[in-house]
Amino acid sequence: MSPGFGIAPPYLIFIGDAQDEVIAKTGFGVVKWRPDDCLGQARMSGCGVDLGLPDLSIAQAAANGARTLIIGIAPSGGSLPERWIASLVEALEAGLDIASGLHIRLGSIPALLAAAERTGRRLIDVRHSLHNFTVAKGEPRPGKRLLTVGTDCAVGKKYTALSIHAALQRRGVPATFRATGQTGILIGESGVAVDAVVADFVAGAAEWLSPAAAPEHWDIIEGQGSLFHPAFAGVSLGLLHGSQPDVFVVCHEPTRQTLTGVKARVPGLDEVINLTNLLGRVTNPDIRCGGVSINTARLEEAAARDLIEETAARLGLPCTDPIRFGIDRIAEPLL
Amino acid sequence: MSPGFGIAPPYLIFIGDAQDEVIAKTGFGVVKWRPDDCLGQARMSGCGVDLGLPDLSIAQAAANGARTLIIGIAPSGGSLPERWIASLVEALEAGLDIASGLHIRLGSIPALLAAAERTGRRLIDVRHSLHNFTVAKGEPRPGKRLLTVGTDCAVGKKYTALSIHAALQRRGVPATFRATGQTGILIGESGVAVDAVVADFVAGAAEWLSPAAAPEHWDIIEGQGSLFHPAFAGVSLGLLHGSQPDVFVVCHEPTRQTLTGVKARVPGLDEVINLTNLLGRVTNPDIRCGGVSINTARLEEAAARDLIEETAARLGLPCTDPIRFGIDRIAEPLL
Repeated sequence: MSPGFGIAPPYLIFIGDAQDEVIAKTGFGVVKWRPDDCLGQARMSGCGVDLGLPDLSIAQAAANGARTLIIGIAPSGGSLPERWIASLVEALEAGLDIASGLHIRLGSIPALLAAAERTGRRLIDVRHSLHNFTVAKGEPRPGKRLLTVGTDCAVGKKYTALSIHAALQRRGVPATFRATGQTGILIGESGVAVDAVVADFVAGAAEWLSPAAAPEHWDIIEGQGSLFHPAFAGVSLGLLHGSQPDVFVVCHEPTRQTLTGVKARVPGLDEVINLTNLLGRVTNPDIRCGGVSINTARLEEAAARDLIEETAARLGLPCTDPIRFGIDRIAEPLL
Repeated sequence: MSPGFGIAPPYLIFIGDAQDEVIAKTGFGVVKWRPDDCLGQARMSGCGVDLGLPDLSIAQAAANGARTLIIGIAPSGGSLPERWIASLVEALEAGLDIASGLHIRLGSIPALLAAAERTGRRLIDVRHSLHNFTVAKGEPRPGKRLLTVGTDCAVGKKYTALSIHAALQRRGVPATFRATGQTGILIGESGVAVDAVVADFVAGAAEWLSPAAAPEHWDIIEGQGSLFHPAFAGVSLGLLHGSQPDVFVVCHEPTRQTLTGVKARVPGLDEVINLTNLLGRVTNPDIRCGGVSINTARLEEAAARDLIEETAARLGLPCTDPIRFGIDRIAEPLL
């Protein structure tokens, strides 16, 4: 397995001038799942997002003991805006490492590379695995696997996987969280950002990430993208084939009008279930849907309960919002 | 569009110790589509494949005017066996450039890099585009597009696309062949090896490769892999979504028992057609199947004719073997 990236806490979460919560999902994820390690947030003027952490300047954060600035914002495409660089150089000068999940390597930016060399601080690119992957073999392997899939990007696949993993651990079931994106890796400190892998090796990377294990062990694998997303479906499919899940859980955000970043329609839950079964059978003939996880954050509680009950009845599957109502409905049938 | 890679003919095709024709498909492709530029083949002892070219030592090829050694063998995974390096160094010393479609960059092999620097010869990696791709936009664009898809790898997707392109050109229809793999690029001298693109950008690379064009212009896009292949389906899906084809042609090799390199079953033509329609509709609601291209090289002619007629009748679609019987049945309905 991939070794940890050695990211030293506590963290200052940098969200720059993020304008919406979807773009800042890395920051929200680290705050949610590693709260004790988050000292504060660093925001630039015009930032429209609040992680709920104390606002700290970089100097304040350093004075309070922050050891790593985590870039908590993930613009589509993974580049790093020029206007952030001065803040990042300031962080290095103040003695912090920088950890990033962007596609672009921090060391490829001359000002950052020079500042890191000058200060002796580390630039940590969690999106880039040090492992050389191979093409997938497509052969069954022991151990149980669960993959979260979605109707879209940023609908709760990571939260759902982390919730199921925590629920299994509470019950004493051997389980491992397998991160496949930058935020998951920053939370779990290991994993593979599958969207940064060379396309030929995505399924192979997924096989490597969830290797043969004891028959009763569960790998709980964070999903990526959506099989219906025009930009990212190929990544989702490679991850599905390589993960060979016994069980998948569909994640959904019911107020989404179009898919993230494009004008395409949001698919129905039944479409996602049918397509995931159809495509997943290529590497696991026994694949089945283990439930639906709905992110109801934008609904009133009564409406959220109604939607969950209606969905469970309509599809004949366990349904919940893991953040609002807990994951037991989906986790317990796994035992 | 991507500029040509500037590969100087005539070529010496190196197939090393290839043991089967599938592994040497790059060599066969260049010989088939650029016959006038192929001077000879270089084979190592134990090679079990014959491209039908004169056998030449590297010294003989250089003496006869060869200017580029093309690596005509594509092992799964794209590495370069240690045992070939001496031959490649000898080619550089003899004054030839080397062109490769392997995943590994020639310049990453110290002995080759040193020899190239010493001799002033070029190492040309056609698999690695110099363009920085972005995520796909998923928006419709003008111009007509045809994508070849397959039941498996190495079933005739490139041959079929090249045949359709040639047929349209003969009829005066504006058309461009869009190569998506190493052999296609070596034949067409431009294109993008989509399986070597970072996974997040595969669909975006496919959009870039077949850009907006005149309404009557056809891009004929070489397909990759198979939506049913456990290792490569993600690449196939990203290419399908980014290409937004109006028409796809399914390519098939009827004697194949299992998918290339894995133990998985070969899907039925009807399964491939249904799944391609289902997934392709995400970016082009009007996608349709334009026919079936069957590679009948391993069948007797009568059996080949029977299979083609039976398939055409069963599916209600044009069907042919473009190498054996020509592509007119599929190309003419496009006009």
